[in-house]
Amino acid sequence: EVTLINPFLVPEPQEQAVLDHWEQARDFLETQPGYISTTLHRSIQPNSKFHYINVAKWESTADFKTAISKMNKSLSPLSIPGVEFYPALYEVIRN
Amino acid sequence: EVTLINPFLVPEPQEQAVLDHWEQARDFLETQPGYISTTLHRSIQPNSKFHYINVAKWESTADFKTAISKMNKSLSPLSIPGVEFYPALYEVIRN
Repeated sequence: EVTLINPFLVPEPQEQAVLDHWEQARDFLETQPGYISTTLHRSIQPNSKFHYINVAKWESTADFKTAISKMNKSLSPLSIPGVEFYPALYEVIRN
Repeated sequence: EVTLINPFLVPEPQEQAVLDHWEQARDFLETQPGYISTTLHRSIQPNSKFHYINVAKWESTADFKTAISKMNKSLSPLSIPGVEFYPALYEVIRN
């Protein structure tokens, strides 16, 4: 199992557009083989470095990469200025 | 319910010392009222911005803050050069 953790920065005026795009991507990805779950978090502290962090679980790195490349072919890419994503894949090492 | 998400940077030589400190803190915090779970993630991609991200769930912000202040009184603080933490509290807005 792998975990995608994607902290991102969104200029306030763009928040709804980014959330709409996030939902489109989630609706696509949740139909893909190896998808387990996704949880989008919004900060409740005004001075946090990242206002949004998505945490998604997949059966494997390969499943995740296959799904993302299929999504990129079928959905229009997010082209909103000022949005910064820092996605990476993680393994759980302690509980 | 609130989620603490704490991305952190650790210079490679300090990783074991930071993990040891993380375990001490986890062992203390998991005994505190309102603690639900914690999951420490390590990146499986070399070029990720954050090598470690901790995701912990608590019943409430108040429970979390009380536990942290008690921990700070009973455990010695982490004083390892080069370690950078970016903790913040989050709410879940989409699944």
